[in-house]
Amino acid sequence: MQGSAIRAAIHVAAVFGIYLSIAMLVPALFDLYVGHPDWRVFAFSAFFMGGLCMGIALATHGPPPVISPRLALLVVNLLWFTMCIAGAVPFIASSLQMTVADAFFESVSGVTATGATVLTGLDGLGPGLLLWRSILQWIGGLGVIALGLFILPFLNIGGVSYFSIESSDISERPFERFSTFVLSLLSIYTALTLACGIAYGLAGMSGFDALNHALTTIATAGFSTHDASMGFYADKPAILWVGTVFMFIGALPFSILILFAIRGRLDALGDPQIRVFAGYCVVFVIAVTAYLRVSAGVPLSEAFTHSAFNFVSIITTTGYASSDYTLWGPFAIACAFAATFLGGCSGSTTGGIKAFRFLIMFELFANRMRSLVYPHTVLTVRYGDRPVDAAMQSAVVLFISSFIVIWVIGTILLAATGMDLLSSLSGALTAITNVGPGLGDFIGPAGNFTAVPEAAKWILSFLMLLGRLEIIAVLVIFTPVFWRR
Amino acid sequence: MQGSAIRAAIHVAAVFGIYLSIAMLVPALFDLYVGHPDWRVFAFSAFFMGGLCMGIALATHGPPPVISPRLALLVVNLLWFTMCIAGAVPFIASSLQMTVADAFFESVSGVTATGATVLTGLDGLGPGLLLWRSILQWIGGLGVIALGLFILPFLNIGGVSYFSIESSDISERPFERFSTFVLSLLSIYTALTLACGIAYGLAGMSGFDALNHALTTIATAGFSTHDASMGFYADKPAILWVGTVFMFIGALPFSILILFAIRGRLDALGDPQIRVFAGYCVVFVIAVTAYLRVSAGVPLSEAFTHSAFNFVSIITTTGYASSDYTLWGPFAIACAFAATFLGGCSGSTTGGIKAFRFLIMFELFANRMRSLVYPHTVLTVRYGDRPVDAAMQSAVVLFISSFIVIWVIGTILLAATGMDLLSSLSGALTAITNVGPGLGDFIGPAGNFTAVPEAAKWILSFLMLLGRLEIIAVLVIFTPVFWRR
Repeated sequence: MQGSAIRAAIHVAAVFGIYLSIAMLVPALFDLYVGHPDWRVFAFSAFFMGGLCMGIALATHGPPPVISPRLALLVVNLLWFTMCIAGAVPFIASSLQMTVADAFFESVSGVTATGATVLTGLDGLGPGLLLWRSILQWIGGLGVIALGLFILPFLNIGGVSYFSIESSDISERPFERFSTFVLSLLSIYTALTLACGIAYGLAGMSGFDALNHALTTIATAGFSTHDASMGFYADKPAILWVGTVFMFIGALPFSILILFAIRGRLDALGDPQIRVFAGYCVVFVIAVTAYLRVSAGVPLSEAFTHSAFNFVSIITTTGYASSDYTLWGPFAIACAFAATFLGGCSGSTTGGIKAFRFLIMFELFANRMRSLVYPHTVLTVRYGDRPVDAAMQSAVVLFISSFIVIWVIGTILLAATGMDLLSSLSGALTAITNVGPGLGDFIGPAGNFTAVPEAAKWILSFLMLLGRLEIIAVLVIFTPVFWRR
Repeated sequence: MQGSAIRAAIHVAAVFGIYLSIAMLVPALFDLYVGHPDWRVFAFSAFFMGGLCMGIALATHGPPPVISPRLALLVVNLLWFTMCIAGAVPFIASSLQMTVADAFFESVSGVTATGATVLTGLDGLGPGLLLWRSILQWIGGLGVIALGLFILPFLNIGGVSYFSIESSDISERPFERFSTFVLSLLSIYTALTLACGIAYGLAGMSGFDALNHALTTIATAGFSTHDASMGFYADKPAILWVGTVFMFIGALPFSILILFAIRGRLDALGDPQIRVFAGYCVVFVIAVTAYLRVSAGVPLSEAFTHSAFNFVSIITTTGYASSDYTLWGPFAIACAFAATFLGGCSGSTTGGIKAFRFLIMFELFANRMRSLVYPHTVLTVRYGDRPVDAAMQSAVVLFISSFIVIWVIGTILLAATGMDLLSSLSGALTAITNVGPGLGDFIGPAGNFTAVPEAAKWILSFLMLLGRLEIIAVLVIFTPVFWRR
């Protein structure tokens, strides 16, 4: 790693930090408008963060560096780290008297679009702080889409190279320039957020709630403005269905949404990962609906609405809860646990293992079985009608394996802070998949992360970042080879 | 699959069944000698099973078939299935009034060397039945070594081909014939069992207990003659240390033990999987010893003895318990959970993921990190000083990935029978890794599987078999391609 590359990476992160400082003016203006004193918190934070970043940006100004994988990795890590710091500043500056660990956890949970919270009394919180939490998730969601569409394919991380829009559409030249593509991503992300907010409003939410939940629904992120999360609207099925539909849309590959919006192409119908993702959503929702209907006698429409909302919420790694599904019985709890692994499509805002990896793993396994029977047959692994090369195959199963190892290590570390096994297991899992709620007595869908030990909050914050950046993109920063000249 | 191959496979299994019937005469003679009425149970079972298998063997007699991978797979599955059935017959015929599910579970737990039990009141059970349980585990352990040394390498399953003794030693011709090798395996397995039994006796066990525990220690299997498992000897550290040492030996690759015994070669010192296995044993034992010492104030020697015994027991997938480690606090519980995944060396009697797979996975991950930094470097994965080919790499990480998926599906199925999440999670895990005890209120080290729902016993039995035969060797039987002509 050259010194000039480190300088350039810090410069990019500092410039991004200036933009984030400007974003703080949104809650500041909002609080000023409604007459809430927190506007000072945001004005101060913007001034402090903006000044700091401005200084760093000026100090690191220089000629553009040579683009390299290492530079890209460093920039990605620094951008996310900047978001985490910038996100935490207003929490620390606020009157909530949050510890640094709490503020950092809340911020990381925001920018990684996880949605786990250490705050209670959300219903009485200032509108600026609520809006700031939602904005962090919205920006974080946008960042993850950009990461999945532009950066990870370039680095060939976790097998996502397959889904870069360039590779499949470069021959058709759908976008004249890269900036056009970024602009269309931004437009569609914004348009979907607006559509979601309007739908929430029509379904009966207040304007402020609709705005916040729209920001955190499209980002499949899960912060709510109520302690009860979407349980606040448990008796308004229309609102829950708006949420279900838009969480599902948020879990679709944005490259395909863009192609659909710009050129009317229904590529979605041909993408196997969408069929797999939709498939496991349907299986879980039907199974849990039937279980609720039969074992607990819940009326069918109610069982269906809440199963759909909560399981689409878990599978898309959003993490809203419309009711405490840990009271639904052991089968529903085990389904919630299993669903936490899944995730949505590549190039979306979701975390977890994701549909395409399950598909490729299943193909590999089926091929292994065939080759047991016919050892000399050469079998190709296919994703839809395209062959999947060996490097991609290996990246996929290696991702799943290392994901599990990190999860188990995370569980041990959390238990070492004194958390019980179920909380440690589900806490580590929900952090690394960026879902949000865990299971057990205090971090479940009806609880929050307030009571978690201080050390555990740092561990969980690190796990959320690991999960968000596909594990290896973070861990590589800690290897000597990364820093070698 | 040709009809002649199916016939031949059934024939082999039936002949094996005759041997198993003869094995039933051992507990019969034992009970007759001590004057226990159960000798009739075993004599009847031997007669019934022997007659049945004789009939099937005669009916399926024919010319030898062409050896094929499919035939080998079918034979392996049928041999294990025959062991499960033959093992269950004396339980059903006994006066214990066991249900078919209970008898089958106990037998499967025996022959897969798992060690989970549905029986209570072991201390008052007839010596024949106790001995039969131990014999099942001893035969099952021997079968797994043979499987790992001869069959799986031939089929290239789960990446174990690497450890076939032929590939590394064919040039040196250490054994003149295959049968010599089988004979030396049998001799060393028996010699180790005798050594273990004598050591147990010298450490203070009764002769009968020493015999039984020797049979189930070398097989890293875990059935005990006491409800309290090795907790019965909790105040005799010498016995626990004998157990620890021989469980560790049982988890070493038998090919290397054979080379050592026959030719005095210390290959073990050069085998990376042994260093990895010993390494994680040491880490877990030291961590838990320190935790017990510091957090609970347990005297150091006591903490060390019980940590070493219980964690070597879990890691080697034996499953004895010298005390209820689920009372040691959250960190120890999380360590017990994590240790359940590990397993010993390839070509041993242990289950789980096994040391060589972690090693190769770690190498793959390290290489992926290096290639992120230097995308154009070609990196080879090494096992010690030998390169690991792409097929083996893929088999290893695919095994780990599918292992996890099967575990999560098993968890959902167990929860569907009404088991709580922690019992389902740990029950499915301990079954698929062939460890034995789980965690939670009733299947933990102080409990047993008596209270588990009937349906769950069938699911757990299937999971034990899946784990024992490296998952894919069982699942392939259920594919249409396997039965195609």
